[in-house]
Amino acid sequence: MLKVGIIGAGRIGKVHGESITKYVPSAVVKAIADPFLNDQTRAWAKEMGIENVYEDYHKILEDDEIEAVLVCSSTDTHSSISVEAVEAGKHVFCEKPIDHDLDRIDAVLKAVEKAGVKYQVGFNRRFDHNFRAVRQAVKDGVVGEPHIIKITSRDPEAPPAEYVKVSGGLFLDMTIHDFDMVRYLSGSEVVEVHAYGNVLVDPAIGEAGDIDTAIVTMKLENGALAVIDNSREAAYGYDQRAEVFGSKGAVAVSNDSSSTAVISTKDGVKGEKPLYFFLERYMQSFADELKCFVEAIENDTQVPVNANDGLAPVLIGLAAKKSLLEGRPVKISEIK
Amino acid sequence: MLKVGIIGAGRIGKVHGESITKYVPSAVVKAIADPFLNDQTRAWAKEMGIENVYEDYHKILEDDEIEAVLVCSSTDTHSSISVEAVEAGKHVFCEKPIDHDLDRIDAVLKAVEKAGVKYQVGFNRRFDHNFRAVRQAVKDGVVGEPHIIKITSRDPEAPPAEYVKVSGGLFLDMTIHDFDMVRYLSGSEVVEVHAYGNVLVDPAIGEAGDIDTAIVTMKLENGALAVIDNSREAAYGYDQRAEVFGSKGAVAVSNDSSSTAVISTKDGVKGEKPLYFFLERYMQSFADELKCFVEAIENDTQVPVNANDGLAPVLIGLAAKKSLLEGRPVKISEIK
Amino acid sequence: MLKVGIIGAGRIGKVHGESITKYVPSAVVKAIADPFLNDQTRAWAKEMGIENVYEDYHKILEDDEIEAVLVCSSTDTHSSISVEAVEAGKHVFCEKPIDHDLDRIDAVLKAVEKAGVKYQVGFNRRFDHNFRAVRQAVKDGVVGEPHIIKITSRDPEAPPAEYVKVSGGLFLDMTIHDFDMVRYLSGSEVVEVHAYGNVLVDPAIGEAGDIDTAIVTMKLENGALAVIDNSREAAYGYDQRAEVFGSKGAVAVSNDSSSTAVISTKDGVKGEKPLYFFLERYMQSFADELKCFVEAIENDTQVPVNANDGLAPVLIGLAAKKSLLEGRPVKISEIK
Amino acid sequence: MLKVGIIGAGRIGKVHGESITKYVPSAVVKAIADPFLNDQTRAWAKEMGIENVYEDYHKILEDDEIEAVLVCSSTDTHSSISVEAVEAGKHVFCEKPIDHDLDRIDAVLKAVEKAGVKYQVGFNRRFDHNFRAVRQAVKDGVVGEPHIIKITSRDPEAPPAEYVKVSGGLFLDMTIHDFDMVRYLSGSEVVEVHAYGNVLVDPAIGEAGDIDTAIVTMKLENGALAVIDNSREAAYGYDQRAEVFGSKGAVAVSNDSSSTAVISTKDGVKGEKPLYFFLERYMQSFADELKCFVEAIENDTQVPVNANDGLAPVLIGLAAKKSLLEGRPVKISEIK
Repeated sequence: MLKVGIIGAGRIGKVHGESITKYVPSAVVKAIADPFLNDQTRAWAKEMGIENVYEDYHKILEDDEIEAVLVCSSTDTHSSISVEAVEAGKHVFCEKPIDHDLDRIDAVLKAVEKAGVKYQVGFNRRFDHNFRAVRQAVKDGVVGEPHIIKITSRDPEAPPAEYVKVSGGLFLDMTIHDFDMVRYLSGSEVVEVHAYGNVLVDPAIGEAGDIDTAIVTMKLENGALAVIDNSREAAYGYDQRAEVFGSKGAVAVSNDSSSTAVISTKDGVKGEKPLYFFLERYMQSFADELKCFVEAIENDTQVPVNANDGLAPVLIGLAAKKSLLEGRPVKISEIK
Repeated sequence: MLKVGIIGAGRIGKVHGESITKYVPSAVVKAIADPFLNDQTRAWAKEMGIENVYEDYHKILEDDEIEAVLVCSSTDTHSSISVEAVEAGKHVFCEKPIDHDLDRIDAVLKAVEKAGVKYQVGFNRRFDHNFRAVRQAVKDGVVGEPHIIKITSRDPEAPPAEYVKVSGGLFLDMTIHDFDMVRYLSGSEVVEVHAYGNVLVDPAIGEAGDIDTAIVTMKLENGALAVIDNSREAAYGYDQRAEVFGSKGAVAVSNDSSSTAVISTKDGVKGEKPLYFFLERYMQSFADELKCFVEAIENDTQVPVNANDGLAPVLIGLAAKKSLLEGRPVKISEIK
Repeated sequence: MLKVGIIGAGRIGKVHGESITKYVPSAVVKAIADPFLNDQTRAWAKEMGIENVYEDYHKILEDDEIEAVLVCSSTDTHSSISVEAVEAGKHVFCEKPIDHDLDRIDAVLKAVEKAGVKYQVGFNRRFDHNFRAVRQAVKDGVVGEPHIIKITSRDPEAPPAEYVKVSGGLFLDMTIHDFDMVRYLSGSEVVEVHAYGNVLVDPAIGEAGDIDTAIVTMKLENGALAVIDNSREAAYGYDQRAEVFGSKGAVAVSNDSSSTAVISTKDGVKGEKPLYFFLERYMQSFADELKCFVEAIENDTQVPVNANDGLAPVLIGLAAKKSLLEGRPVKISEIK
Repeated sequence: MLKVGIIGAGRIGKVHGESITKYVPSAVVKAIADPFLNDQTRAWAKEMGIENVYEDYHKILEDDEIEAVLVCSSTDTHSSISVEAVEAGKHVFCEKPIDHDLDRIDAVLKAVEKAGVKYQVGFNRRFDHNFRAVRQAVKDGVVGEPHIIKITSRDPEAPPAEYVKVSGGLFLDMTIHDFDMVRYLSGSEVVEVHAYGNVLVDPAIGEAGDIDTAIVTMKLENGALAVIDNSREAAYGYDQRAEVFGSKGAVAVSNDSSSTAVISTKDGVKGEKPLYFFLERYMQSFADELKCFVEAIENDTQVPVNANDGLAPVLIGLAAKKSLLEGRPVKISEIK
C-alpha cells in the first residue's frame, strides 16, 4: 500500500485526495497539509480516512512512511516545494505549471535527475477519454501522418482581472493545457509560434495587461501545422474540442454533455450544452492520472507526463506572449 | 424522344411535369389534361413548353404520338383511367394508391397483363436518397438478416376532417407509404398486422371516423417483425425516419433539414428542424421515379414499382383497418 | 450513519456495496451474506471495509444496528427474503423483479404495508441521466401531452438457453425494465398489451420455450400508445434508446459511448459503438438509486420506486407472454 | 425575358447555362461562345435550347438583345473580357477571381463605375444553404458580437502541379473562397494576415513553388480574429465547415453528405462521407447566385457580390503569400 501525502488542501488537492481514496486501491492518503486549515477541510479529511492533517507541509516530507507527494499548493510554490520533496526522496506529482520561471523549472529538472525519483506533471487532459481516443487514432496510424492539429478551448466564464495579473496570463494559465495537447496529440515538438489576441470579453482583463481571446498557430518539428483558438467566455459552457487531420483522414472529438437528450419542437431541434464545469468535465481524467502515477511508482516505470513535459508548454506559452507583444512569429529556440 | 401525357394538372401533376421537363432529357411532356383548367395552369404549361392543354383526357389517350401517360387525377379515378390508358396501349405511371377497392385494382392488374405495357405506381420514397441507402445496406448484407424494421412517419400538420372522410383514412392515405417501405426495406412480404390507434390530435378526425395516431406492428414472411408509428401532426415538422436491425447490425436514417447549422447559446445546442413540406423533402425522389419509369420504357426493362407493389400496401392497409376495428391481429390472407 | 446489510454477494451485490462505500457518505455497509462465499468475495469485503461477512443472511436480519437491507440474492428468493427482512423491521431495497408469481408479490406488498418500512425496487434505469432527461422534459410539458412512447432495448449478447428457462423469459427478465420505462416516461399506466415475437438469434432459445426478438405495443390509460422493440443480440453493443412524442414535440435519447471521437477516412465517417456492458452503461444509475434509497430512509420520504412499481411491470410482462401465446391483445385486467 | 450570353463553354459555363435554363424562369441563354467548340458542346447547347453558338465572344457583345453576359472563360481573360463587356453596356457576372493583378482589377472597377452596369463576382458559397445559415445567425445577433471566425476548407484531391503554376497558388485559387467567407460571415474587413504553410501532400506542388497545407490567421477591423485551415487533399472528401463564435454563443456548419444513413456494426457506427465533388456539393449555390444576379438586373438593385467583393479576397491572398514568403504578419494596407 503506497502512502501518499498531499500538500495543499484547496479544490484540486481535495479532488486528488478523493480520487486516491476511491479509485486507487493500492494507495492511501496518509496526510494532508495546508497553512489555512479550516473545519470543512478537517471534516473532509476525516471522511476520507486521512490519518494526519498538518498546517506545515514539512511534516509530510519528514514522514518516512510517505513515499509520494502531491504538490497542490499555490502556483508560485510549485517549484520550490517540488525541489524540497524530491530532495527528501519523495516521488512527486505536481500540479501544472511547474513554474513560469525557466530557471526555477530548471532547478526542479536537475533535482529530479539527481534524486532519481518519479516526477509527474498534472496535465490531466492526456488522460481524458476523448483526447486519448484522438491520440490513439494518431498513434495507430488511422489518420496517417499528421498535417493539421486543431484545438478549440474556451472557458465558460472569464476569471476576475485580479487572477490574470498573477496567473501569467491566458497563454500560461489556460492555453498551457492546449499547448500540451498539441504536443500530445501530434507526437511532435513545437518549433515556432505566432499569436493573435484581443480583449473582447472583459475590458478589465485588458487593463490588467492580458487578452481574453486568442488564435495561436504553430509549426511543428514533423512539418505539421497547429492552431489553438481560445476564449475566456463561451456563453454555452466549457468548449473543449480537438481534431487531427492527416494524410489518411481526420479524427475529431466534440464536447461531453450531461445527457444525449434531443428535444424537437416548433422552435428547433435542441440538444444539451457541453458540461459547464471543468471538474465535472474532466473528473475521470483526474482519477486516471493518479492511477498512472501510482502504477509508475509501483512498477518503477516511466511516468506518462514527466518534468520535460511540464517545461515544454511553458516555453511555448512564453513564445506566444512574445509573439503577441512583438507582432511576429517567435521560435521556441529564442526562449530557451 | 419519349412523348408523355399528363392526366391531372394538380400539384403532383405539375411536379411530375417539371421533373420530366428539367431532369429527364430523353422525354418531353406533349400534353396535359384537366377538367378544371385555369389560367395559372395554362401559363405553367406554356412555360414548360407543353404543346397541348386539354380539358378531356381522352384526347391524350387518342394521341398516337404519346407513348406514356402519368395518371395524376383524383384518387377515385386512378383505376378507371389506368385501365383506359393501358387498353389504349399507353405505358402508365399511376399515382398511389391505384384504388382502395380490390376488385378495381384487380381490373388494372388484368388489363396491364393483357396489354403488356409498363405500369409503375408512384411510391416515390423508394427513390429517396435516405431510404435507398437503407435498402442498399440491407441488400448488401451489411446488417445481415433483417430482424426488426422500424418506420417513423409523422406529418407536420393534420389534414381537414373532410379529407379523411374520402381518403380511406390514415392507413390508406398516409401509412400506405410506410407499408410500402416495410416491403421495400425488408425485401419480404407482410403476413399479419396488428394496429393500435387513437384520436389525440384533432377530435374532428375522430368524428369523421378515423384516427390520427397509430402504432402498427407486422409479422413478415422472412420471420422479421416490423413496426410503424404514425402521427398526423408533429410540431417540429415532417418526421421521416427508418431503421433496419439485423443479425450483423443496424442501418438507420434520420431527417433531412435545410442546413447543417448548429447554434450553441446559453439556452442549449440547437439544430434545424426537419424539412416541413413533403414536396421539399421528397423532390429528388419525384424526379428519380420518373427517370426510372422512362428508362424502363426505353430499355424495355421491368419498372421498379409495379402494379403488384401497388396492390400489396392496400391489402396491408385494409388489414390494419380491420385489426383496429376488431381489436385483434389480422392476417393478410383474410383480406385477399 | 445508516448501517446497511447486503444479502447476496454476486455481481450486483458487489456493485451496490461499492456504490454505498464510495458514493453514499451517510451510509456504510456493515455486513454482507452469501451462502457461497469465496476468497475473492472476502478480499473484496475487506477492501470495502465491511465488518461482517456471513454465509447465513439471517445474521444480517438479526443485527439490530442494521437498518436497511439490500436483497441481491437469486431471483427466486427475492420475495421470501423481502418478507423476512420487512418483518424484521428493515428497510428493503430489492433487486428486480420482486417475483414472477403474483401471490408472492402480494405477500411482499402486504408485509411492507403492515411494517411501515421503506421498500424500493431496483429499476435503476429511472436514475439514468438519459432517461431522467426524457422524463424531465415530459414532466415539464416541453413535449406536451404524450402521444407515442418508443423504447429500443437490445442486449449485446444472448444469454445461454439455460438462463431463459429459469428467468421467466425475455418479457420478464429483459423487457421488464422497458415496461417500467414506459410507465416512468409516460407517467401513465398500461391498459392493454400486444406482442409479436420470434426466434431469430439463437434456436436454442426457441427450444427452451422463449423468443429472442420482440415488438410489444401497448395502450396506456392516458390514451397514448407505446412500443418496445427487443433483441437479445445487437452486434454493435448494448442499444438503449427512448423517445416520447407528444402534442408539442418529441424528446429522444440515444446511446452513450466511450468517447465522442469521430474518424473520417476514405472508408466513411466512423464513431464509437454504444457502451457494450450494462454495468459500464448504467453505473451512475446504480449509485444514484442507492443514494435516493438512503435519502428516503433518512428523511422519511417516499421511495422513488415502490413495491407497486415492482408489481406493475410483472403484470405487463405476464400479459405480453399471454398475448404472444394466444395471438391476441391482452388487457392487464385479465392478469390481475 | 432577360437574354443572356455565356462566354466560355467549359465546365462552369455549362453549369451556369443549365442553371439559367432550369431555375431562372425569367431569363434565357441566347448565345454561348467558346474558341474551342466541339460536338459535345453543340449538342449540349441544342438540348438547352440556346439559339447561337459562336467561336468568337465578340458576337455576343455585339448582340443588342443580350443584356447580360457571364464571363466563364479562362482566368487570365476574366478582367479584359469583363472590361469589354461592361463597355459594351452589358451587365456582367464574372467567375472568380476577377484577376490576380491589382491594376487589371482596378481597370474593371473603373469600367463598371463608368458604365453604371451590374457587375457580380462568382463567389457562390455566399449562396450556399449552410453558409447562409451561419451568416443569418450572425446578422440576427444570435451569437452576439463575432469574436472568432473559423473556416475549414480542404479539397478531396490535389490538383496537378501544372495547375498551381498558373493558378496563382493555393491562396489565390483555393483559399480565396475562404477569404471571401471570412468577410461574408463576419461582416467585417481583414486588416492583417499571417500564414503558415507547408508541402505535406505532394512534393511536386512544392517544386512548382506552392504549398498544399496552410493555416492562415487574420485580424479583422471589428476586432475579431479569424482562422482558415486548408489542405489540398482530404482522404474522406471535400471538407467545408465554418464556425462563428461570439459574445452570445456560436454557430457552426458541418458537411453535407449523400444520405443520413448510419450503419452500426461490430466495427463501429459509420455515417456517410462528405460529398466529394464541388459541383455536387455547391450545385444549389450556383443556381442561386444566378437567380440573384438576374433579379438585381430586373429590379435594378445592388448585386449581392460586387466588384469590390471580388477585389478584397485577392488583396488578402496576396498578403498571405507575402506573409508566407517573409515569415511575418502582413497588413492589407501594405498590398494596396
